[in-house]
Amino acid sequence: MAVSLGSLAVRFGCELHGDPDVCIEKVATLHSAGPGCLSFLANPAYRSQLSGTRAAAVVLRPEDQPSCPTSALLTSDPYVVFARIAGELHPQLALRPGVSPTASIGHECIVPATCEIGAGAVIGDRTRLGDRVLVGPGVVLGSDVSIGADTRLIGSVHVYAGTRIGARCVLHAGAVIGADGFGFARDRDGTYEKVPQVGVVVLGDDVEVGANTTIDRGAIDDTHVGNGVKLDNQVQVGHNVRIGEHTVVAALTGISGSATIGARCIIGGQVGIAGHITIVDDVVIAGRAIVTGPIRKAGAYGGGGLPADDLRRWRRNIVRAGQLEEMAKRLQVLERNIGRVSREES
Amino acid sequence: MAVSLGSLAVRFGCELHGDPDVCIEKVATLHSAGPGCLSFLANPAYRSQLSGTRAAAVVLRPEDQPSCPTSALLTSDPYVVFARIAGELHPQLALRPGVSPTASIGHECIVPATCEIGAGAVIGDRTRLGDRVLVGPGVVLGSDVSIGADTRLIGSVHVYAGTRIGARCVLHAGAVIGADGFGFARDRDGTYEKVPQVGVVVLGDDVEVGANTTIDRGAIDDTHVGNGVKLDNQVQVGHNVRIGEHTVVAALTGISGSATIGARCIIGGQVGIAGHITIVDDVVIAGRAIVTGPIRKAGAYGGGGLPADDLRRWRRNIVRAGQLEEMAKRLQVLERNIGRVSREES
Amino acid sequence: MAVSLGSLAVRFGCELHGDPDVCIEKVATLHSAGPGCLSFLANPAYRSQLSGTRAAAVVLRPEDQPSCPTSALLTSDPYVVFARIAGELHPQLALRPGVSPTASIGHECIVPATCEIGAGAVIGDRTRLGDRVLVGPGVVLGSDVSIGADTRLIGSVHVYAGTRIGARCVLHAGAVIGADGFGFARDRDGTYEKVPQVGVVVLGDDVEVGANTTIDRGAIDDTHVGNGVKLDNQVQVGHNVRIGEHTVVAALTGISGSATIGARCIIGGQVGIAGHITIVDDVVIAGRAIVTGPIRKAGAYGGGGLPADDLRRWRRNIVRAGQLEEMAKRLQVLERNIGRVSREES
Repeated sequence: MAVSLGSLAVRFGCELHGDPDVCIEKVATLHSAGPGCLSFLANPAYRSQLSGTRAAAVVLRPEDQPSCPTSALLTSDPYVVFARIAGELHPQLALRPGVSPTASIGHECIVPATCEIGAGAVIGDRTRLGDRVLVGPGVVLGSDVSIGADTRLIGSVHVYAGTRIGARCVLHAGAVIGADGFGFARDRDGTYEKVPQVGVVVLGDDVEVGANTTIDRGAIDDTHVGNGVKLDNQVQVGHNVRIGEHTVVAALTGISGSATIGARCIIGGQVGIAGHITIVDDVVIAGRAIVTGPIRKAGAYGGGGLPADDLRRWRRNIVRAGQLEEMAKRLQVLERNIGRVSREES
Repeated sequence: MAVSLGSLAVRFGCELHGDPDVCIEKVATLHSAGPGCLSFLANPAYRSQLSGTRAAAVVLRPEDQPSCPTSALLTSDPYVVFARIAGELHPQLALRPGVSPTASIGHECIVPATCEIGAGAVIGDRTRLGDRVLVGPGVVLGSDVSIGADTRLIGSVHVYAGTRIGARCVLHAGAVIGADGFGFARDRDGTYEKVPQVGVVVLGDDVEVGANTTIDRGAIDDTHVGNGVKLDNQVQVGHNVRIGEHTVVAALTGISGSATIGARCIIGGQVGIAGHITIVDDVVIAGRAIVTGPIRKAGAYGGGGLPADDLRRWRRNIVRAGQLEEMAKRLQVLERNIGRVSREES
Repeated sequence: MAVSLGSLAVRFGCELHGDPDVCIEKVATLHSAGPGCLSFLANPAYRSQLSGTRAAAVVLRPEDQPSCPTSALLTSDPYVVFARIAGELHPQLALRPGVSPTASIGHECIVPATCEIGAGAVIGDRTRLGDRVLVGPGVVLGSDVSIGADTRLIGSVHVYAGTRIGARCVLHAGAVIGADGFGFARDRDGTYEKVPQVGVVVLGDDVEVGANTTIDRGAIDDTHVGNGVKLDNQVQVGHNVRIGEHTVVAALTGISGSATIGARCIIGGQVGIAGHITIVDDVVIAGRAIVTGPIRKAGAYGGGGLPADDLRRWRRNIVRAGQLEEMAKRLQVLERNIGRVSREES
């Protein structure tokens, strides 16, 4: 698809600098762009690539325009505007409505004719899909699942019985929604009794779930993932966790059972969050932090391999951690000196 | 299903306090319970919710009974007893014996008529199932696999050829059992030669394997997971690992090749265990610890991002790690003072 | 299959010590070997098992031969030679060319008659396979995928549209190649705009991808995994990552978006690598390290839960980290003493 730069400027609310008739066909990075390509500059780390770009046009902040060798769309939010234009230039693949002959659909299901049900997909009894839902190849939906309109399960996703998924969600391959939480009661002899996991998983609207991410069903009450939450790949969400709206979680992070996470949080990769704690809204947690207790105040927290802490304090501590051997030696010198001083004293 | 409180007291060996004719239909948390609900109090953190509960009855310790506003089942192990009653009130879904028309079964397999083989399931040649095995939708079993009675592969599980699985196990979606271990011999030019992985995986009875957990086949000998072991989601078990009976491992933990872990251990989430080491029975390892050497003594070990250590010692060290910047400054002050003192001395 | 020791010596370039007519049938560990078994000794930790082995023959270094109670193949690279011989004694299962009746193949695909397409496999439109490709049971290939000759997707692998995979690769169950990268632009109100992920994943030749490992497609340009790269289980590779040839990555490691990793690197398990950084060739990173900045010099780096550092320096620091409580107390003593000395001074 191709569109004029002038039309993009009007529709996405940007100031146009340059030729409105330039024809834009696709997106590209500043470095690899050529004719017909739209690029963007948001991260200052890439500013040095601006002068050499061969893009047809660049989305950027007004202050970067003077260094831009080509047409530009000026906006204070270049990454957001670029994302929107890219979404128009590279639309999601259109659904091919219909049910594959190798799909299996249970009894009393609701599967609108606008849905695409891929090869080998399996849908349990009484499951209800909204309009234009994609159930890709190899997806398994248990019984009594409900899925809102325009949600896309790309393929090879497994959704357990009773799960409720909102509208416009995207679930990537290998995601498992609604498996049993890790609930076992330890008996006196050291063996375990399984605690039935009778809650379900409830995903809001506009949730994205990454590849091979797992979200466990609730033990008794439900596990909740709020509207607009984005989970990266290989994230683990334990039973009865609650994640507030528009919170994002990077890859390989584990959230233990019954943790409650606020809205609009940004949680890095490989973070570990203990069970039964609460994190308030608008908290940023740096990658690899361990959150062992509640976080009661919005703000940025670091941790590395250590418990989460105020980000600046943590950064100073982490520098010191790399100087421990030296500190230990300085301590020895002091001890020797003070001993000498003391001896001379007496 | 519904049952009288009196009958539960008798069958699960509890002292009944209150009305034996109260009818129990399902389980609920103290907070969300209503009429017909059975709740429990085991974790003291939830004691404050007891007085306000609207549960029909609560399973709790005798000392908590005076604060309980409703009928109670008294026991010294409320969580274990609750788990057993919950298992009766919320039984696993009954199997629907039979083979789905879209399942594929190889040659010379043993598939008793009591088994349920779900849609799209694939079973390789010479694979043998015990009675009442569930091979859920999308499950793939390789050739020469054996599975004991009453084991349930919920769905979308992949089991490689030759794997042996015991009775009454539960394998959750996305689990991969028996993939090749990570065995490559480095050649002089920096390229790698694959070392064939000819061992298999042997799971005992009553093992639970979480969603997207991976257990590699042995390189030469086999990988062993003992009876009653419970693995959470996204756990990685390397080739030739041995895990003793009734050990539990929380999510995202990695156990490197040829590690041997004792019986009745409790291993937290995101733990890393080095290869070729041995951990004795009855060891508790806190979340995120790194175990780089053998653990020869039963007990509790911490580590955070640091090597595993005696839990109390580790907790004190981890507090100090958050004070490193301050310690470094105090060290500087001392060095300045001792310099001054020394200069004044001379 | 069985072969004489003499023939192995000739073909794999080893000096033979012992009886050339000994018949070798399979491989075994020093400990478990019996008649007909070939074992090896490479890791000195197992040297004590040599004298008691009942193996028919052992592959080992010349200096270990005097302690060997049986026939031996002498070589300076016993593990590499053993790997090659094991590959001959235990060849991969032969393909069974043909397309399963329950597989689904799209339009305009190229599927040579030498390929094996397993039960329930799904292949999208215009996908092209080389000769002797295995598309195992439950594998899903999107549209416009290309796969080189002799590559084996064992089963339950999901490959997104547009992915290009080289020759002789092995992809294990649960691997997901080409899911969307984690790209979202944050709007002023804290909600997110999805950034279309229009790049693809390109895997070179001889790549091995472990079970449940995920490799994201590029945001704009592509994600590249070089020839000979070996990824263990549950590794996460973000969008636009580049991994150089013959680099190996152990389990549960996360590589953030746009990181560039050199050739012949060895990266331990549970490592975290930040986005947009470069690591040069021939770098070794110990398990659990955090790499937050570029690594510009070949060599070994540690880190534990802390930022990556020169391995020896790191080891000393990590020992000190376990002594922090003691260091803090010594500091207090010094402060008290210096205070006393100072007071006595004045």
